Amino acid sequence: MNPQTHDVIYESDVFYGKNAFTGETLPTAFPVHGQEEVEQAANAAAEIARDFRRLSNEKRASLLCSIALELEARSEDIVARAHLETALPDARLKGEIGRTANQLRLFADVVKSGSYHQAIFDTPSPERQPVPKPDIRRQQIAIGPVAVFGASNFPLAFSAAGGDTASALAAGCPVIVKGHTAHPGTSQIVAECMEKALDKEQLPQAIFTLLQGNRRELGQALVTHPKIKGVGFTGSVGGGRALFNLAQQRPEPIPFYGELGAINPTFILPDAMKTNPSLAEQFVASMTMGCGQFCTKPGVVFAINSPETQAFIETAQQIIRQQSPSTLLTHSIKDNYQSEVENRGSDNGITVTYSEAQSPNVPAALFVTDSKNWRSNPAWEEEIFGPQSLIVVCDDFEDMLALSETLSGSLTATIHATVEDYSQAHQLIPCLEEMAGRLVFNGWPTGVEVGYAMVHGGPYPASTHSASTSVGAEAIHRWLRPVAYQALPEALLPSSLQATNPLGIKRNIDGLTC
Amino acid sequence: MNPQTHDVIYESDVFYGKNAFTGETLPTAFPVHGQEEVEQAANAAAEIARDFRRLSNEKRASLLCSIALELEARSEDIVARAHLETALPDARLKGEIGRTANQLRLFADVVKSGSYHQAIFDTPSPERQPVPKPDIRRQQIAIGPVAVFGASNFPLAFSAAGGDTASALAAGCPVIVKGHTAHPGTSQIVAECMEKALDKEQLPQAIFTLLQGNRRELGQALVTHPKIKGVGFTGSVGGGRALFNLAQQRPEPIPFYGELGAINPTFILPDAMKTNPSLAEQFVASMTMGCGQFCTKPGVVFAINSPETQAFIETAQQIIRQQSPSTLLTHSIKDNYQSEVENRGSDNGITVTYSEAQSPNVPAALFVTDSKNWRSNPAWEEEIFGPQSLIVVCDDFEDMLALSETLSGSLTATIHATVEDYSQAHQLIPCLEEMAGRLVFNGWPTGVEVGYAMVHGGPYPASTHSASTSVGAEAIHRWLRPVAYQALPEALLPSSLQATNPLGIKRNIDGLTC
Repeated sequence: MNPQTHDVIYESDVFYGKNAFTGETLPTAFPVHGQEEVEQAANAAAEIARDFRRLSNEKRASLLCSIALELEARSEDIVARAHLETALPDARLKGEIGRTANQLRLFADVVKSGSYHQAIFDTPSPERQPVPKPDIRRQQIAIGPVAVFGASNFPLAFSAAGGDTASALAAGCPVIVKGHTAHPGTSQIVAECMEKALDKEQLPQAIFTLLQGNRRELGQALVTHPKIKGVGFTGSVGGGRALFNLAQQRPEPIPFYGELGAINPTFILPDAMKTNPSLAEQFVASMTMGCGQFCTKPGVVFAINSPETQAFIETAQQIIRQQSPSTLLTHSIKDNYQSEVENRGSDNGITVTYSEAQSPNVPAALFVTDSKNWRSNPAWEEEIFGPQSLIVVCDDFEDMLALSETLSGSLTATIHATVEDYSQAHQLIPCLEEMAGRLVFNGWPTGVEVGYAMVHGGPYPASTHSASTSVGAEAIHRWLRPVAYQALPEALLPSSLQATNPLGIKRNIDGLTC
Repeated sequence: MNPQTHDVIYESDVFYGKNAFTGETLPTAFPVHGQEEVEQAANAAAEIARDFRRLSNEKRASLLCSIALELEARSEDIVARAHLETALPDARLKGEIGRTANQLRLFADVVKSGSYHQAIFDTPSPERQPVPKPDIRRQQIAIGPVAVFGASNFPLAFSAAGGDTASALAAGCPVIVKGHTAHPGTSQIVAECMEKALDKEQLPQAIFTLLQGNRRELGQALVTHPKIKGVGFTGSVGGGRALFNLAQQRPEPIPFYGELGAINPTFILPDAMKTNPSLAEQFVASMTMGCGQFCTKPGVVFAINSPETQAFIETAQQIIRQQSPSTLLTHSIKDNYQSEVENRGSDNGITVTYSEAQSPNVPAALFVTDSKNWRSNPAWEEEIFGPQSLIVVCDDFEDMLALSETLSGSLTATIHATVEDYSQAHQLIPCLEEMAGRLVFNGWPTGVEVGYAMVHGGPYPASTHSASTSVGAEAIHRWLRPVAYQALPEALLPSSLQATNPLGIKRNIDGLTC
């Protein structure tokens, strides 16, 4: 940059949100942050990280509850701004605030229970031969400052105060969020809620920092900063993999929890197809939910050739034709969707049905092919973000089973089956377990419950870290690492490991839960 | 290779073990495996991986116990060969067989208890508004075939049937071991024990394969093979990091659990220094144990300048002078040790004391410096494998505390303190927790207990995956990933998640352990 013009604010020093409906620029300029702001935020976070991880469980739980309350208090502002920035309907956004607040409260419960410490004890035995058995106790502690990348499709639940942030704060890690450029105004309001909650709890603001902007440098600087100790990411395979690579190439590699992409295969077995006349309607409802912008959208359905499957296809096509057009999250998502759907539609061996309503917005699209063509077009396995899906007609169950063995990792895999189909389901399940994070039975994968048992992850590219989940109570473990304490006296042990058990937590002693 | 000479066995098609004492070639040629053998082994492992992960817990536990018995049965052969290949004393090797067998039996217990499934339940609530709460249950399953790299310094406990192999088999992962070139004969006998155990249990041999050889291609082919789903590694920072990089650059990155290096800092606080006259003797015993070839060797001791610290140093130097010379594991380790110790000794601001015995073998070496010189020589923080260590004299406790904040990740950190020192220990602990996997109090880090609470890992470079341990019951989790099952009927659920709890395992229901 020319030093003489350094103080002039160019277009590139600020950026604006866009109206997702019209593409017009929305009022309010947001700063374009870069390396310098990352440096400041990471240093500030590192400075308070130790105190924050050693804060009492009660205080950290209280912070999470305060954030939830502040979000609910700003509900109207958030919905209004997010609606403009994302084109998502008010009711969905209201629901997403509720979900985000509940998620924060779930992690408050997790922190209060102290279960996340995973306290394990080995009872000493000074008389053991040939050497005495030492007193070893183990707990989990926070890894340090964490970077979180907001996602476009969940401006709340997977963004500034979403699951990654909530679980990292719960673990005791300060968080620096890179807000998604698709909803800077929404992220800004959420950051204001964070600021108020931290103020109310009399905690340092460096526990949470929102950085914004559209320069690639920002994300790269975050992932490579030596004081950042872990990353949470939800987004595309291309962008996520590039950041994952940077995180692994650092002098000190750090865990990168990226949820990148999934086609969420669904398998409809013969008797379910025969006896459940509402499958086509359910399928189209699930694939078009949120305008097909859910990471759990059923992107491919495998069915076995039969008159019932033909009827299922025809009904689905009929419903597709009647779908209202969708306004996607951003104009670039729209452009991608249109070109990718058009490309796929022009491939050989595939047919496509569009929704018929005339509109400037995008139509839903349903592709149909057979297993032979599916096999010779591996590109069809790539996710297209938006309201489209693909039905693959298999010759018979053996054909379907063979295809199930060839799929890349996915967040979910779904089976529709009646008792008549159980023997076939039994054959499918072991394979689907190996390629998905969650198996759904006689339902649809959209709708991710935030609970204790949820797994939102799966083999690559569903997740860059298939042993983790980004949703549900277990997500806290991404931000923790174990430490063992050998022969420490009671006075020096962390409270989770003291003999008197002042936290009243469950512990594992010599292999048994107590 | 010239096709006409394809059948001729060149020197490079086989390799030999070496007598660690003399450097002479030992009888018995071992094949040099490469890409082709990796391909065969990985395909064979992948073929039986599903059956093996779904084998009953009882059967897998029984296999682990059979391996332990076979090792014990071949104890004499193993000790004899390992003694020649590693120069480790018979008693130590006998002990290591015992430790390895106990480790296998610990994992058998872990498998039988079923705790590794980590079964978690969310109770459904069909009446919940606005949407019903689904029935979600979650367990952990094996990730698939795993590659294990044997270590030079523990020919049994960290090699072919060591902790990585035992924990992976326990999880239900077939294992392909790359045996360390320093002890091919030992690995071969262990592989024969494995073969017998698999035979006895009527299980396929593809569950365990030993590959040998000195070509870099072998390790690279293993780590990059698409059917390998995880790697366990114990070794040097250079070699380990290169393989880690390959594992992360794969189209599908896989978890790489590498234990690479550690200097295991020890902090002696003033009153402990004053009141414990045996510290110098304990220190030298720990740093020279196993000829200083333990990954938990105390590689640096921080003490505060005082007459007592000077006395500690003088005593340690005196004991060092009287040490017997050491025969290191291999001649290349010996060469490295000699040149690195010589280099360090010629640096400015450091003194070195050697053991005085004349011998073709290597002397123990004790370096002494002060905190100022330590700060200006970051290279001194690099581990030297072998019987050497370094004492750093700090000006005062603030100086020591400041240094403690600058250390790289290590397997352990040790504090010596009396009650008088507790307030200083209180200040050190939060920092040491952040840089080590295990804190040791008034002891020495060598000797790694194989129990439930052990953490043998820590921030990089101690481990490439600081949330894991390579020793102890928790090591099994490296080879598992979670899967959630939504609304599956009892008949299709895995036994760990069936309502009737046929395995009789502990489960977590709605956040509570039951």
